[in-house]
Amino acid sequence: MVGYAFMGRAHSQAWRVAPRFFDLPHDPVMQVLVGRSPERAAQAARRLGWAEVETDWRRVVERDDVDLVDICTPGDTHAEIATAALAAGKHVLVEKPMANTLAEAETMAAAARAAAAQGALSMVGFSYRRVPALALARDLVAEGRIGEVRQVRAQYLQDWLADPDAPLSWRLDKARAGSGALGDIGAHIVDLTHFITGQRVVGVSAMLDTFVAERPVATSTGALRGTGGADRGPVTVDDSAVFLARLSSGAPATFEATRFAWGRKNAIRIEVSGTAGAIAFDFEDMNVLNFFDAADDARTAGFRRVLVTEPDHPYMAAWWPAGHGLGYEHTFVHQVVDLVEAVAAGEQPTPSFDDGLAVQRVLDAVERSAASHSTFTPVD
Amino acid sequence: MVGYAFMGRAHSQAWRVAPRFFDLPHDPVMQVLVGRSPERAAQAARRLGWAEVETDWRRVVERDDVDLVDICTPGDTHAEIATAALAAGKHVLVEKPMANTLAEAETMAAAARAAAAQGALSMVGFSYRRVPALALARDLVAEGRIGEVRQVRAQYLQDWLADPDAPLSWRLDKARAGSGALGDIGAHIVDLTHFITGQRVVGVSAMLDTFVAERPVATSTGALRGTGGADRGPVTVDDSAVFLARLSSGAPATFEATRFAWGRKNAIRIEVSGTAGAIAFDFEDMNVLNFFDAADDARTAGFRRVLVTEPDHPYMAAWWPAGHGLGYEHTFVHQVVDLVEAVAAGEQPTPSFDDGLAVQRVLDAVERSAASHSTFTPVD
Amino acid sequence: MVGYAFMGRAHSQAWRVAPRFFDLPHDPVMQVLVGRSPERAAQAARRLGWAEVETDWRRVVERDDVDLVDICTPGDTHAEIATAALAAGKHVLVEKPMANTLAEAETMAAAARAAAAQGALSMVGFSYRRVPALALARDLVAEGRIGEVRQVRAQYLQDWLADPDAPLSWRLDKARAGSGALGDIGAHIVDLTHFITGQRVVGVSAMLDTFVAERPVATSTGALRGTGGADRGPVTVDDSAVFLARLSSGAPATFEATRFAWGRKNAIRIEVSGTAGAIAFDFEDMNVLNFFDAADDARTAGFRRVLVTEPDHPYMAAWWPAGHGLGYEHTFVHQVVDLVEAVAAGEQPTPSFDDGLAVQRVLDAVERSAASHSTFTPVD
Amino acid sequence: MVGYAFMGRAHSQAWRVAPRFFDLPHDPVMQVLVGRSPERAAQAARRLGWAEVETDWRRVVERDDVDLVDICTPGDTHAEIATAALAAGKHVLVEKPMANTLAEAETMAAAARAAAAQGALSMVGFSYRRVPALALARDLVAEGRIGEVRQVRAQYLQDWLADPDAPLSWRLDKARAGSGALGDIGAHIVDLTHFITGQRVVGVSAMLDTFVAERPVATSTGALRGTGGADRGPVTVDDSAVFLARLSSGAPATFEATRFAWGRKNAIRIEVSGTAGAIAFDFEDMNVLNFFDAADDARTAGFRRVLVTEPDHPYMAAWWPAGHGLGYEHTFVHQVVDLVEAVAAGEQPTPSFDDGLAVQRVLDAVERSAASHSTFTPVD
Repeated sequence: MVGYAFMGRAHSQAWRVAPRFFDLPHDPVMQVLVGRSPERAAQAARRLGWAEVETDWRRVVERDDVDLVDICTPGDTHAEIATAALAAGKHVLVEKPMANTLAEAETMAAAARAAAAQGALSMVGFSYRRVPALALARDLVAEGRIGEVRQVRAQYLQDWLADPDAPLSWRLDKARAGSGALGDIGAHIVDLTHFITGQRVVGVSAMLDTFVAERPVATSTGALRGTGGADRGPVTVDDSAVFLARLSSGAPATFEATRFAWGRKNAIRIEVSGTAGAIAFDFEDMNVLNFFDAADDARTAGFRRVLVTEPDHPYMAAWWPAGHGLGYEHTFVHQVVDLVEAVAAGEQPTPSFDDGLAVQRVLDAVERSAASHSTFTPVD
Repeated sequence: MVGYAFMGRAHSQAWRVAPRFFDLPHDPVMQVLVGRSPERAAQAARRLGWAEVETDWRRVVERDDVDLVDICTPGDTHAEIATAALAAGKHVLVEKPMANTLAEAETMAAAARAAAAQGALSMVGFSYRRVPALALARDLVAEGRIGEVRQVRAQYLQDWLADPDAPLSWRLDKARAGSGALGDIGAHIVDLTHFITGQRVVGVSAMLDTFVAERPVATSTGALRGTGGADRGPVTVDDSAVFLARLSSGAPATFEATRFAWGRKNAIRIEVSGTAGAIAFDFEDMNVLNFFDAADDARTAGFRRVLVTEPDHPYMAAWWPAGHGLGYEHTFVHQVVDLVEAVAAGEQPTPSFDDGLAVQRVLDAVERSAASHSTFTPVD
Repeated sequence: MVGYAFMGRAHSQAWRVAPRFFDLPHDPVMQVLVGRSPERAAQAARRLGWAEVETDWRRVVERDDVDLVDICTPGDTHAEIATAALAAGKHVLVEKPMANTLAEAETMAAAARAAAAQGALSMVGFSYRRVPALALARDLVAEGRIGEVRQVRAQYLQDWLADPDAPLSWRLDKARAGSGALGDIGAHIVDLTHFITGQRVVGVSAMLDTFVAERPVATSTGALRGTGGADRGPVTVDDSAVFLARLSSGAPATFEATRFAWGRKNAIRIEVSGTAGAIAFDFEDMNVLNFFDAADDARTAGFRRVLVTEPDHPYMAAWWPAGHGLGYEHTFVHQVVDLVEAVAAGEQPTPSFDDGLAVQRVLDAVERSAASHSTFTPVD
Repeated sequence: MVGYAFMGRAHSQAWRVAPRFFDLPHDPVMQVLVGRSPERAAQAARRLGWAEVETDWRRVVERDDVDLVDICTPGDTHAEIATAALAAGKHVLVEKPMANTLAEAETMAAAARAAAAQGALSMVGFSYRRVPALALARDLVAEGRIGEVRQVRAQYLQDWLADPDAPLSWRLDKARAGSGALGDIGAHIVDLTHFITGQRVVGVSAMLDTFVAERPVATSTGALRGTGGADRGPVTVDDSAVFLARLSSGAPATFEATRFAWGRKNAIRIEVSGTAGAIAFDFEDMNVLNFFDAADDARTAGFRRVLVTEPDHPYMAAWWPAGHGLGYEHTFVHQVVDLVEAVAAGEQPTPSFDDGLAVQRVLDAVERSAASHSTFTPVD
């Protein structure tokens, strides 16, 4: 695994826990953690449970005893590491956003296609696909339970930047992060829309905004926030991304990604209205899927608050009795399960690098539309 | 109509509005308002839309041009007025609680039975039966949609007495009000349980508490609260009533009535669990009934948030399009509709005085149990 | 009052009820109802409580005993009636949308300005401004309780057209209704955004869609729906309107209006995020305003579910004790109260025709943007 | 660890995960798993990550390399194992209910007191104390944020027995389980009430019911449910427990525990009303605490939906950014953290066996009251 910050912690927990609850075809071994500082990497490896430490990822991708490389670093490093690992015949899991630029994403997707022919498989870490309630949403849509998709409304609302004195971090630096709310969290709701509807966003009309132009330079870092000092530096990414979209079928959709919505901590809200029903989800109540079935008689029809904790629900048979809900990091456990199973079966895991590229193309179209008076901009 | 305070205002609105939305067999005429002070009664009549004023209800019950007497005074006056009106051949609507003592309630019920034989009908104003969502709950239970009733949990929570300096009012005076939270609001949830389940409470085990023994004497009054002065007087009623109960079928139930639950303004919460489903209601979201159908497949089962505003829902065809909800006073409108229709048809309106007596007997058993170490006390 | 359908019923109820709960400077007299069919108008007048009937509104605007004309007809008639009434020195209340075309709206606004100089005042019936929770939202924003407005997300979701066999009505005919979801319900959320934020929408980027191109011709009508026959006719308005917007301050906003969102009956949802807090509202729980105060300490900060039924809340002192909520038509009562008070004081009621025109200009810009590849289109 | 079923899995996960997120003073080693069947125990040990297997717990409590014994077996075995382990100088964690009889619990508590003097510490596994939202509730109450406790309403609702064909398991056998809903889930809400209020239940008035007298004998088992065969056997425990209670301060409380509430999967609901505010919790939305502060001005007062995921919240600094919630098994992780820290500090962990005994005494009083016409029964 390369990187050991927020995502590194989540991925480590996933590798550790998955085989304890699921029957995996392979037993994952947490072998080597990569970090630039040997001391800090060693400390992280002890805490997170990795056997060894390396300071250069290049050495790791060459090792024979490494089957899979898990990339948890900022987006500007993804392309180089992933293509090298794939070229070396390793399976690759890369955190989202897949890359910071469309060109990098295209290179990676091409590398992934080539590597797949050689048996090296790859996956992008859009972990929210593995929220059981959202996997159920996808299944219900695929089964036709809401009919044809007519409208999508998707929001990803956080508030950790609402305070203008929240410090700068790499997530606010275009060079490191590629974009702001758009790539960090907007990417998730685009991917979730692709996942749930089985369609793609084919065009967008967008606005991007930066509300706070300068912030204190961070003197220490946390998972998302850190502590700021007296110096201030520029914010070079968007604080807010709003866009209209068309899906493959022509259905309209609205998207909003922001880290300035006071009181919304991690509110991924997706509502899909179809010709025969609707589903609605909010990550702040992540074990619940709301489902409206238009076939119910009008007297007793209403959104059903489905507690997605039954043995029949995706991933849930492995866990606890009904009503005993899961948390955030379980999505990473499920991601590991799906990845290991696909690798063992020699099948393409999803979301593939092509799926990641599809999201990247939407983000790119959003930026181009926003720079062109919000004019409707086809995705490629 | 006798009395013109909180309930008098609600009843006046009901008489005024009912014929504008419903096809009533008779067109009600708001003829005469009774109040002890001629000036204040005249002022109220103008405001509330009554044609005349009387200061003595005895003169009204003798008038030939009065068909129905609507009694909105405190409970200690109900028995005398109601029996006189019934004896004079008038139909009677009496606010709940029907009476302050069991003896009075029995007298009234006997009078009602006798008068009914002469064509004078009577009804108790348990208006919450006319919340469309609760009428729907009753219908669903009666249709077997939740199977046999296994458990009831009923709470009526308010907070207008949580402040120890909220002033004394007649509602805190045992001589006027009969009891405190028990009769004022506990009576409603007992009646609603009777209504929804079609069963009766047959025994109880209870605790009554008075949290604040003395309060400022009121210097002015509002609907529930008023303004207090420097003098303090004793609270002679219960502040909280909690009781366990058995229904006719043997099903257990829990009840709580309190005016001390900070943040709960008028939270009538009823949840009925049956062998085949469940219903749940909270008046703070009064246009909604939550319904769980155990026949739904486990993957998509969940409490359905039914917005009870469809034309197929009780009373709703007369009002607005779906989603355009009703408010508190609409229950009084529906009460008038049901009363006028029953009177026109010569049928017993519900809840009858016998229904009111049944509630009164439960309240009496609660008081006796609370005075006897909470020992299970049959309802007569 | 001209017109007696859905809106006519709501307005009649408002004129009837307002003086019973509020101290009005004038006592409204419900004098004359106008309808083209004398029989049906007479029947409606009896039901709704109007003293007389006319078949031609022109006669009414000339009568000396009429002070105010309340226009509840479809949008294509508003301009002619309103300008005539204003020219005759009558005060005017006109239902929304103010007009079907921008040109008509401009004419009306000019007429209103001229009439105001002569003492004839006018108001547009954006009744949702009078939901107490939304009036409170406006007050909190005006008081700075959420700081500066950063983002608005506004949706108006209904589902009465989701069924493709729901019949045609005048609301689906561009000639009568002007536009579809956009003018019918989108107008409300634009006006509410203006009202709550105190800002104007200054530009939009939009998409309009018609999902169902043909529908059964209606053989009878209800408030929103009716019954359809075997013939089918074209839908000439939008079924869905989505748009991005900029407010005067530059803040971005997202809007969606649709009558195809299964399970959402009348879901007016407004969320405003500011620099110091946020407010959120959903009409399906209309007595509640959710309020987040960023000044609360982090341990106990959270959206406050404010039950807007306290005497200190807008309009509520006139009604019931806390927790005894209001319904849909109360907004019309409050509208009458505000209108009568403004007229008595000789002050401009709000929303004025200029406010209505401002909304109309936004709707016009939405249509132009949708016709131009969603390009950002300034509001005039 | 003794036992490896539902609770064994949860405890194993806790021992595995705790040191990865928290700075523990000792690094736990998962040494030996005890099970009667060597094959099944070995299989479980592999899956759950224990180094060795034993078939007799007696050998384990004698081993020098074992510091702590974690007892996850049914309640009828707790007393013997726990007292032996304590006598052998081991620290002990025992799942709830502490014991099946009051006598056993008293023996255990005495043993714990004696062992503590020798440095062997003990704890009962009331894991729900470690839900961050409930730990926050306790803190707020202790800090006086809701004033003095006036009323408690506590429910624990499940539905896995609502189906009359759900099979028999040891949880329905009085000899193994001690009692039914009362001890299985009622014990939790009694302990939580003790924990949150800092008071004890001092007397109760109770009703116990068994709704389904016979069930299919289980042919296989799951965490809570299994598969039933054609034979039927008797249910010897309660299906439902309802009771009124008095706390030390005299405050009244209501309790309900049932596994027959259709649609409620694991609804632990606690609401505490105090003189200055209130808190409300439902495990079905476990990352949320609702908090009402009566000091808020009436215009903006309302239950605050606090998402208990901030770094300032109990246990949360170790986990993820705000809004990234936890799940059921995290409570066991926190339990391990608190236990290891207390043991390292040589301090009594909570809840102690005396705390467990206090709950057991309440359960015993409930059974005695239910057998005595619900008469108020002091807790010893």
